[in-house]
Order: sequence, then structure tokens, then C-alpha cells
Amino acid sequence: MKHLLDIKELNRHQIELLFDLADRLNHQPREQKPLAGRSAIALFFENSTRTLTSFQLACQRLGVDLTALNIAHSSTQKGETLRDTILTLDAMQTDAFIVRHQDNHMQRDMAEWINHRASVINAGDGTNQHPTQGLLDLYTIRQHQGQFEPLSVAIIGDTKHSRVANSLLDGLQIMGTKDIRLFAPDTFVADHQKTFLADSLQSAISEADVVVMLRIQRERLSDQSNLDVEAWAAHYGLNSERLKWAKKEAIVMHPGPMNRGVEITDAVADGPQSVILNQVTNGVLIRQALIHQLLS
Amino acid sequence: MKHLLDIKELNRHQIELLFDLADRLNHQPREQKPLAGRSAIALFFENSTRTLTSFQLACQRLGVDLTALNIAHSSTQKGETLRDTILTLDAMQTDAFIVRHQDNHMQRDMAEWINHRASVINAGDGTNQHPTQGLLDLYTIRQHQGQFEPLSVAIIGDTKHSRVANSLLDGLQIMGTKDIRLFAPDTFVADHQKTFLADSLQSAISEADVVVMLRIQRERLSDQSNLDVEAWAAHYGLNSERLKWAKKEAIVMHPGPMNRGVEITDAVADGPQSVILNQVTNGVLIRQALIHQLLS
Amino acid sequence: MKHLLDIKELNRHQIELLFDLADRLNHQPREQKPLAGRSAIALFFENSTRTLTSFQLACQRLGVDLTALNIAHSSTQKGETLRDTILTLDAMQTDAFIVRHQDNHMQRDMAEWINHRASVINAGDGTNQHPTQGLLDLYTIRQHQGQFEPLSVAIIGDTKHSRVANSLLDGLQIMGTKDIRLFAPDTFVADHQKTFLADSLQSAISEADVVVMLRIQRERLSDQSNLDVEAWAAHYGLNSERLKWAKKEAIVMHPGPMNRGVEITDAVADGPQSVILNQVTNGVLIRQALIHQLLS
Repeated sequence: MKHLLDIKELNRHQIELLFDLADRLNHQPREQKPLAGRSAIALFFENSTRTLTSFQLACQRLGVDLTALNIAHSSTQKGETLRDTILTLDAMQTDAFIVRHQDNHMQRDMAEWINHRASVINAGDGTNQHPTQGLLDLYTIRQHQGQFEPLSVAIIGDTKHSRVANSLLDGLQIMGTKDIRLFAPDTFVADHQKTFLADSLQSAISEADVVVMLRIQRERLSDQSNLDVEAWAAHYGLNSERLKWAKKEAIVMHPGPMNRGVEITDAVADGPQSVILNQVTNGVLIRQALIHQLLS
Repeated sequence: MKHLLDIKELNRHQIELLFDLADRLNHQPREQKPLAGRSAIALFFENSTRTLTSFQLACQRLGVDLTALNIAHSSTQKGETLRDTILTLDAMQTDAFIVRHQDNHMQRDMAEWINHRASVINAGDGTNQHPTQGLLDLYTIRQHQGQFEPLSVAIIGDTKHSRVANSLLDGLQIMGTKDIRLFAPDTFVADHQKTFLADSLQSAISEADVVVMLRIQRERLSDQSNLDVEAWAAHYGLNSERLKWAKKEAIVMHPGPMNRGVEITDAVADGPQSVILNQVTNGVLIRQALIHQLLS
Repeated sequence: MKHLLDIKELNRHQIELLFDLADRLNHQPREQKPLAGRSAIALFFENSTRTLTSFQLACQRLGVDLTALNIAHSSTQKGETLRDTILTLDAMQTDAFIVRHQDNHMQRDMAEWINHRASVINAGDGTNQHPTQGLLDLYTIRQHQGQFEPLSVAIIGDTKHSRVANSLLDGLQIMGTKDIRLFAPDTFVADHQKTFLADSLQSAISEADVVVMLRIQRERLSDQSNLDVEAWAAHYGLNSERLKWAKKEAIVMHPGPMNRGVEITDAVADGPQSVILNQVTNGVLIRQALIHQLLS
């Protein structure tokens, strides 16, 4: 494994090895910097507090020097092509590029352009993939529910515009999860996701072990004006009543940022079944393990 | 001491211990990183070159990995509440938040929200408090004038909109300073500060050991158009003549940034009694000592 | 050597020592941080991905903590003078300032202002000098062509607005290069450069060992509307045919960012004679050596 572009490039064994490494790294003293002397460059063409900070802390804990470039002010303004920008940074002999981009598959192009040893890590590309999010979601499920095969997982909300949903759907299948159900308005489900579409919110959530709520990706909607937030909450939001449809020991997940009162109520988000903040904690750890794996 | 939200939370003994620690840290070789493996996140909702850089250098000298977030581009744009942003960052298990915010007492809210072990350090909240500035001011006074009890300290200028003035006023009282005098136009003095108000600029400065000059916080004035900068200089500015009213060995302080020619002349700012740059040097040291204290 | 403001401050022996140090640093394991505990502040008043990142990686490899200030949001907005900003940062006792500024000679002023031990490194001032670029260009020439005396070096393009051209011209003369030739439209050559002006593109390139292509500094042209990019390519661009005028073993250089199809074709930029990416690799190394030299 040299790059991580798409979670589908990993098999079940590789994912389990990564999770075992995450477990081990979690118990190492913070003074230890196993990758001291390595460097990485973060290129976020879309803003992100959460993911960028998670990668930054992951790098710090490994001793990897991360340079986060302010891409809005880059040389592309001086007429340079993106390929030349990447080749230039690559020639500085960094060990990894951590890239978020608004276009699907852009990181795959970058991985082909570079000459040196650098690994490319996809930190989200358009509506396609967000593999480290998928991995941290799987890791959180394993932590709370153990084996994947017997689980019922419900994913509710705007899956069409969600690279998070894509990576999670792929990941759950790689791990052998038998029962995966989506629910959202038809226009918020992509064609390749329709095989998982449930008949109703209740049938999606019913007896689920895991309920994953997604926010509406407003920034990806061509027309936001028709969006009725109250109607969304009424038809697709998770509240305490609806959560009772799931198993008693079901966990509630959300990749964040949450729109409280829309796709999830305060009572659920802050309730005892919520593992939303555990996902965030695990995010740093999984990224640590991934970078360790790629750069060692 | 877990957080530093308000200088009034410290007693005289705690402040003296902090100053002794600063003295010790000042003589440690820079290669030593006593807090290697710790991390902090800086959240500056108001821009600040001076204070943020001071905290950054303080962290570097301790070996603390500081991530300064570009808050203007944060997830709050995606509809996330500030509390959720803080809870998310907190779940990444950082050791400290260093926060500047335009609203009074916001850091106190943050300290209540967080679940983990993180310390919250107030790097300035609205017009309320700027405790690390107050501490560095006190440290600078101790360095040059020794004991606090016998001192006369004059604070001249816009104290009403100045969190620096509030923290210094509180700090001087904690340290037992007998004689504190303010002077400014009535509308630039807050009610709780009026007990210190002198009759005239001369009576405020007369025989003072310490003269602290403040800039007009233009960005906090609701109507800047009435402000007559020349009149301010004429009535409230410190020049060499007026400095003679103070004791011969008096020191001149200013928290910066200075408006030269308004509240202070070049001759005074760059003169032999000015300790303005010493304040800056001490700022890094005091922040080092504080972070060391909170995180050890 | 305390500062590096202008390449002309260095003599041939000093430059050769620097290059030898770069050779040695290139073979040190990355885990070694010879300058751990040192710090630097980058002040880029003009944006630059390439140069700032190069300095950042150079600092990381030495163990120097670099703080890159977001100058657009600095205290100068609160009425502070640039001198006071510099004096304030200097009082924080950093070891070096790395400065890019739009005004010629600004870094020289800064070097005079500062009181402490800090070194000032010119990372580009207006149209005047870019000494670390000049050094990395010389280092790249030495790497590929050996001795400087017998070389013919052609510099093609907008030399008038190019601090890169100035530093390279000066550097080549310091190293004893006998034959230096420029070519560009008259209005793109500064008076002090005219002594090197060739009669034609062909006579400039003919039998050259090194061909350096420069981009048009559009951002420095007072009127961009007259600029005919196609005509520029036709008259001053380097393509494979024209490169045959040079020696067979000639190398092609470009400081970047490139405008492909204008001053250079894809075939040349990506061809076997191009050392453009080597320049980038060497840039990190030369800056490492320079900072090591200044701060040791």
C-alpha cells in the first residue's frame, strides 16, 4: 500500500491490521515520535476545520512535520498548472500529500504525476470518497459492536452528495456486513446506492445495531432554495422516539458537522447511545495508524 | 489551577510561583523541551499578530505542538454550533485551548463545555480580561521596580474598552499595590474603574513609579468619527515633559500596538525609561510558565 | 555573515563553503535536527507557495521552529508601524526573520531596526534581489556543469522585473563565469543589465551550456493589456528546435512558476535537458545550508 485513494483498494485483512496498529498506537506514550524526520504537505482545496486538524494532530503524535498550504494563495494564480504545483512540491521530497479536492478522482491524477516516493492520501474528493472517514467509522463500529457480519447498519440522509456515505458503504461491504439499509428522499440517493434503499425511515432503522445520520450537503446542492429544513426534520430526522425502532444497544453516529434540529435532535446527539465524539477521537488515531503504515 | 480565565482567579502566592517558574525557564537551554508530546489548539476569533505569535513561541520553547486554526473558515459556516466545534476539537484530545474571542466570558462557556482534560487559556475576551497580558505586565514591573506594595502606578488612556487595563488593575490589587491612578476622559472609564480616577493627567502621573499608556481601542468605539486624535495627544498623550512629573526612575509601559504621536511620543516610546519591548520579551516567558504550570 | 540581504555580499569562497555544507547536509539522516531549539519567523508580504514551503521544509529538516505570520491580518491594521511590528517580533527573541516584501531593500531596513541577535534572510525584495534563488541556481549549475569559468550562460525573458535574474547575474559574475548573455525585448531589460544583451535569441543561446528561461512578471507590469502571449512565445519562447542551438549537453533551467506554452514548451520543460525540478530539490537544501550557516 503506497497511496490511499479509495477505501475499495483495501481488503478486510489490511483494514484489520490497520485497526490493530491503531489500538497499539493508542497506548504509546505521547513523547514517542516514531516517524520523526518525516514530513507531509496538506493541500486542502476545500476548507475543513475538522479533517485538517485531525490530520495535523495525527502527524504531530507521530513526529511528522506537516505543512498545511494556503492553496487559495498558491502559484496557480501566477498561471502555473496544478500538475506543476504538485511536481514542484514533490521535488521538495516530502513523504506524503494529504489532499482534499472538490473534483472526484483528482488525487488519483496527483498520484500518477509525482515522481518521488511520496504517498497520496485522499482526504475527500468531490462526492466520491473520503476513505479515512470510512475507516474511522468502521473502527468506531468495531469498538462498540465487535464483529461486522451480523450487524444491521442504517444510513439516513443525503447519501448522494456524501463521499462519507460512499466510503462507509464500501467499507461495510469489505468487512462483510450482511445488512445495510439507506433511507433518504429519492433525489438524495445515487443510482449505485439504490440497492440498499429501504421503504421507509422505520424499516431502515428497525432493529438496527448502528444508525448513521448524515447532514444535507447544502454546498453541493445546485438549488438550495427548495430545501425545507423543517420538513426534512419531520421526515428524515432522528429523534428519541424513532431511535427506539433500533436495537436497545444500537449506537448513533454522525460524521459531523451536525445540523442540530435538522437531521438529529439534541437529545439523540448528546444521548447515551451517541458515539459521535468517539468518532472524532478515533479519527486522529486511525489517521495516525494510516500514516504510520504508509510511511514506515 | 486547571484553566486561566480571569486573573482574579489567582492569588498573590500563585502569581509569585508563576514568576519564579518564568525566571527558571529563562535559564533553561532552548534544546530542552519539557512538555514534548503535549499539544494545544489556538482559536483566535479576533486577529492578533502579537499575542498569537507570543503563544506560538512559548509553545515551541516548551515542545508543545500548537495548531492555530483559521477560524474564519471553520465548520460554523456549515451550520455547526460553536459548542459542537469546541466539543469536536476537545474529542481530539488536545491538552489546551488558547482562545481569543470578541465576547466577554466566552472562554468560561468553553471551559464548561469540554469533557476532557484540556485547559482553557483566555487570550483576551471582549472588553473583559486579558490575564496573560496582566501577568506579563506585573512580571515586568517586578523585574524593574521590585516590591509592589510601595509603588504608585498610573494607567492613562482608554481603560473602558481595555481588557488589558482590567487585568492589570486586578493584578496590581492582588499583589498589594497601594496607589493606583487612572486618567482618561470620563467616557473612556468604566464604572467599576472610577474609584481609581485621578483629577488630572498631572495628578495621575505625579511621582509615579510606573506609567502605563493605553491605545484607543478604535475597533471597539461605536462612533469613531468624533475622535480627535490631535486633541487626544494634547490632553492625554505622554511626552518627555509630562514624564518628568513621574519619579526619575519611573518606567513607561504600553501593551502595544502603539499609535505613536497619539498616546505616546517617539521620544518616550524609544527613550531610556521605556520597557515596552521588555514587556514583549516577558510575554513569551510568562506564557511559557503558565502553559508549563497548567499542563504539568 | 549575519544576514543575507544581497548575493553580492558573498564572495566566491563563501559560496563554495555553503555549497559544500549543502552537500554534507544532503547525506545526513533526516532524524538529526542540528538546530533543535532555534526558531525563525517568516514574513511574506507577497504570497508565495514555492519559496515559503521551501523555507518551511528547510527549517523542519534542521529542527528550526518556523512561525509563518499571516501578515495581511497583522497589527499594522491597528495603526502600528512596520518598524514597531519588527521590533516587537524581534523582542520575542527569534533567531531569524525570513522576509519577502514588495519594496526593494526593505529587508535592509529591517536588519538595521532589530536589536537582538536575529538574522534577516531576504526571500525576495521587489525587483531587486532573491539571493537564495540565485544560490540554488548556481548550485544546480555546479552540480551539472562543474566549473563556472568556462561556461556560457544564456538568460532569456523578462529580466527587468526579475529579482531572480539580478541575483543570478550577480552570482555568476562572483563565481567567475566568463560568458553571460541575456535576451528579451528592450523594454524588459534593465539599464544595468544591458551590457549582457545579445543581438538575437539565437546568438544568446548559441553554444550555451546553460539556458535559463524566465516568466513574464505580469504582476509587475503597469499595463498588461498590450502583452501578446503568442507573439512572446514566437519570439522569445524556448522550444526543442531552438534548444538545438545550445550545446548538446546544455541544461535548461526555470525558477518557476512556468507559463507553459509561453516562455517554454512542454517538450523542453519535461525533456531530458530540463533540470527545473532539480532546482526545486536544491532550493530546500541550499536554504538549509544557509540557515545552518547563519544560525550556528
